[in-house]
Amino acid sequence: MSALRASGAAGPALARTARAALTTRHFATALYKPKNQEPAAPVVKTSIPGPKAAKAIKELDRVFETRSINMMIDYPQSAGNYIADPDGNVLLDVYAQIASIPVGYNNLRLRRVARSPEMINALVNRPALGNFPSTTWANLLKTGVLKVAPKGLNNVYTAMAGSDANEIAYKAAFMYKRQQERGGPDVDFTPHEMESAMNNQAPGAAQLSILSFKSSFHGRLFGCLSTTRSKPIHKLDIPAFDWPQATFPQLKYPLDQHAEENAKAEQASLDEVEHLIKTWHLPPAAVVVEPIQSEGGDNHASPAFFQKLRALTLKHNILLIVDEVQTGVGATGKFWAHEHWNLQDPPDMVTFSKKAQAAGYYYRSKDLRPNKPYRQFNTWMGDPSKALLFRAIINEIERLDLVNQTAKVGDYLFGKLEGLAAKYPEHFQNLRGKGQGTFIAFDNPRRDEFLVKAKEFGVNIGGSGASAVRLRPMLTFQEHHADILIGALEEVVKAL
Amino acid sequence: MSALRASGAAGPALARTARAALTTRHFATALYKPKNQEPAAPVVKTSIPGPKAAKAIKELDRVFETRSINMMIDYPQSAGNYIADPDGNVLLDVYAQIASIPVGYNNLRLRRVARSPEMINALVNRPALGNFPSTTWANLLKTGVLKVAPKGLNNVYTAMAGSDANEIAYKAAFMYKRQQERGGPDVDFTPHEMESAMNNQAPGAAQLSILSFKSSFHGRLFGCLSTTRSKPIHKLDIPAFDWPQATFPQLKYPLDQHAEENAKAEQASLDEVEHLIKTWHLPPAAVVVEPIQSEGGDNHASPAFFQKLRALTLKHNILLIVDEVQTGVGATGKFWAHEHWNLQDPPDMVTFSKKAQAAGYYYRSKDLRPNKPYRQFNTWMGDPSKALLFRAIINEIERLDLVNQTAKVGDYLFGKLEGLAAKYPEHFQNLRGKGQGTFIAFDNPRRDEFLVKAKEFGVNIGGSGASAVRLRPMLTFQEHHADILIGALEEVVKAL
Repeated sequence: MSALRASGAAGPALARTARAALTTRHFATALYKPKNQEPAAPVVKTSIPGPKAAKAIKELDRVFETRSINMMIDYPQSAGNYIADPDGNVLLDVYAQIASIPVGYNNLRLRRVARSPEMINALVNRPALGNFPSTTWANLLKTGVLKVAPKGLNNVYTAMAGSDANEIAYKAAFMYKRQQERGGPDVDFTPHEMESAMNNQAPGAAQLSILSFKSSFHGRLFGCLSTTRSKPIHKLDIPAFDWPQATFPQLKYPLDQHAEENAKAEQASLDEVEHLIKTWHLPPAAVVVEPIQSEGGDNHASPAFFQKLRALTLKHNILLIVDEVQTGVGATGKFWAHEHWNLQDPPDMVTFSKKAQAAGYYYRSKDLRPNKPYRQFNTWMGDPSKALLFRAIINEIERLDLVNQTAKVGDYLFGKLEGLAAKYPEHFQNLRGKGQGTFIAFDNPRRDEFLVKAKEFGVNIGGSGASAVRLRPMLTFQEHHADILIGALEEVVKAL
Repeated sequence: MSALRASGAAGPALARTARAALTTRHFATALYKPKNQEPAAPVVKTSIPGPKAAKAIKELDRVFETRSINMMIDYPQSAGNYIADPDGNVLLDVYAQIASIPVGYNNLRLRRVARSPEMINALVNRPALGNFPSTTWANLLKTGVLKVAPKGLNNVYTAMAGSDANEIAYKAAFMYKRQQERGGPDVDFTPHEMESAMNNQAPGAAQLSILSFKSSFHGRLFGCLSTTRSKPIHKLDIPAFDWPQATFPQLKYPLDQHAEENAKAEQASLDEVEHLIKTWHLPPAAVVVEPIQSEGGDNHASPAFFQKLRALTLKHNILLIVDEVQTGVGATGKFWAHEHWNLQDPPDMVTFSKKAQAAGYYYRSKDLRPNKPYRQFNTWMGDPSKALLFRAIINEIERLDLVNQTAKVGDYLFGKLEGLAAKYPEHFQNLRGKGQGTFIAFDNPRRDEFLVKAKEFGVNIGGSGASAVRLRPMLTFQEHHADILIGALEEVVKAL
């Protein structure tokens, strides 16, 4: 147990300054200042959950699911890269609400936008965007969501979260594919199609599929869950469509020592994709892929793999949907992770959510809009209050040059992790994410213990897949945060 | 063309007072005062869309779907029951963002909450509620969402919108049913279940269904769309599960003249439900039903029908999910429409969204929580900022006694509509919703023209199904609004 944890055991009688004196090098000068100012280092006063958190969890359990709780949080006391709990623990947060906080807790620029007249208007007058958009909606899109549109994708369809963003992208793909099969946008539906659609039968209900990859994660609604192949616990007992899955390349690390076999694994995956496209009994309308499989274990593939995947989809006239829900908005050192691929032909659709706070899909051109109104429609179709937040996030990213900073800090962090991996090879296996900003992961054989232990040393970290420790700092994560993280990680493996 | 429309044609040279003098009885003293104060009556200055709206639509079309636009809106100029457009038109709004605005545009109490410290905190620090809930979340639920929980349903699972609220309720039903089949919550999954689930195959992927009703609407994601049976345009080209649908009773009006045949229609529907439960190749885990089919044509059934439906689900040990996305939060003169049924056994789950601004499902007891964590999970699992809004809405409803007021105003409005129906029987067919607050509809053989024409006479109205004019005023709709509406409706049918 660390000095810090012991300091908690010393109880409330221990004065603040005395407690600070007990801290290790990495946790020095840890007197926490709220009001949007980060502490200089984590503060760990109790085990987590501490007594106040435990009481709060018990209270919440009467009315809400609590078995998946990681920490109970005091948000007003959280600041920047640091997350606070009700027992006075303040951790460096490199999990960031499952990779969804972009520019720090209680970011002052976001707070300013949150209390702006535009936000108040958006909150109390939430529009049905498809029927009654505001005169300001086009401008809000252009100065926000669309200002950062991936190259070649200048249209957007907004949504609520990553899951429904993927589902409506799939719907667009099915409608597009069927329209092609039917002979174009001007060919009307047949009475038989209309009647059978009402009975959930072909030909009105398309006998098509979305092709995804093993160990992928695309959300947990019925359509996107049929493409999610992360873990049984995500899928058990839920009806699913009989859609195809291809093996995702299982790269070996370090990459430079396994170049040949990794290239073979990627080619084998591409061959499987092509075979499935040609033979699956429900032909794919689209392939959906994450730039980095972010829930399924931080699985990477090379730009060449994605370039060839793009070529395959074009060759077989099916769409490519890139799911950037977790990889998007800067964390890989590019605004969109697929920028790393240098594609000649952009993807047909790119889905986003999480750090954007808003959600939806960007798409290539108007020909991907369904041929009639009300085919892609719902009551709210997004949320202007979240679009306002996304604009504020974009402005903050630009003001502080956070994408470039994340690229640089990521390189720094990766270098430090390589040092740890050399020193503790059994604890830092398959270190990956080089050149991918702070989107870094490694495997640890005792991963779950590792994550619990990390809290004792002042860091909140998440896992992915079976054994990966996934780092998902915010874009405001800097070199001095990386130093604190590295120090804590070393303490963790020493204590494991 | 009305005097009002003509006044628009007179152009900007016409002084405000002169323009007002041109108005008819129903639109008198229509000088609009913004800043949250309702005008005394609608103001129609131009055709809709007017020149400014048309320009804004053209601009928006470059980046966003516009073919379904009904009106382009100036929200800061909208107030209470009145919606304003950029050309200075201000309409009495009895469509209310597809039935999703509860207490008026720019409601002052909601505005106060929208700029509160709690709201700012909720917006800039959006939590992953399943992993990192706030210490204030339990209290926010108890003083808000759960304060109005339907009788017997004291748990809640929050979501983003009606569609995903329904889908996660379906997921809960599938997990519950499979758990029963498996022998209880302590029986673990078999390796074969886990492996097959990853391949989207049985037994891991449940071979079960959700039974819904013809002409129902439950949303447009893949799972809920498989239960939606409203219109082909909602379903065409989207893959669907082979789930069963029962005929919803087609009641004849007036009810008191068709009591016997209506009772027969309801019994036939129930017989069909039972037959499908017993025989469908994918056995239903749940029946989902709207208290009033709100998109599919405002189709009603009697409390006796729903009581018997509840009995049937209990008899066959399947769950009853009541979809109150459109009917909930007061519009039927009860907070939840299913309160009209006086059920002995409450439904297992009730889904909500729209007027709540928040979304999710209430459920009966903890045994409906899946047996393990992370089975019902996603990144955000709802949104505290919307829960804050819902609490403000609930407080406003209580402060102004809006549910009871809606019941009374609904009776008043229904009486007036009976008068119109007697005078113009061909234009007000199958008047329905008596005793259901303002949740009133009638059929018109030229419905689409009717709705367009209504704007010329100062009222924004929506349709449902093939021929229904659906009234969905806010809860702040009062008798004097009803008078304006009735006056406008009479003008519409005279002009048709």
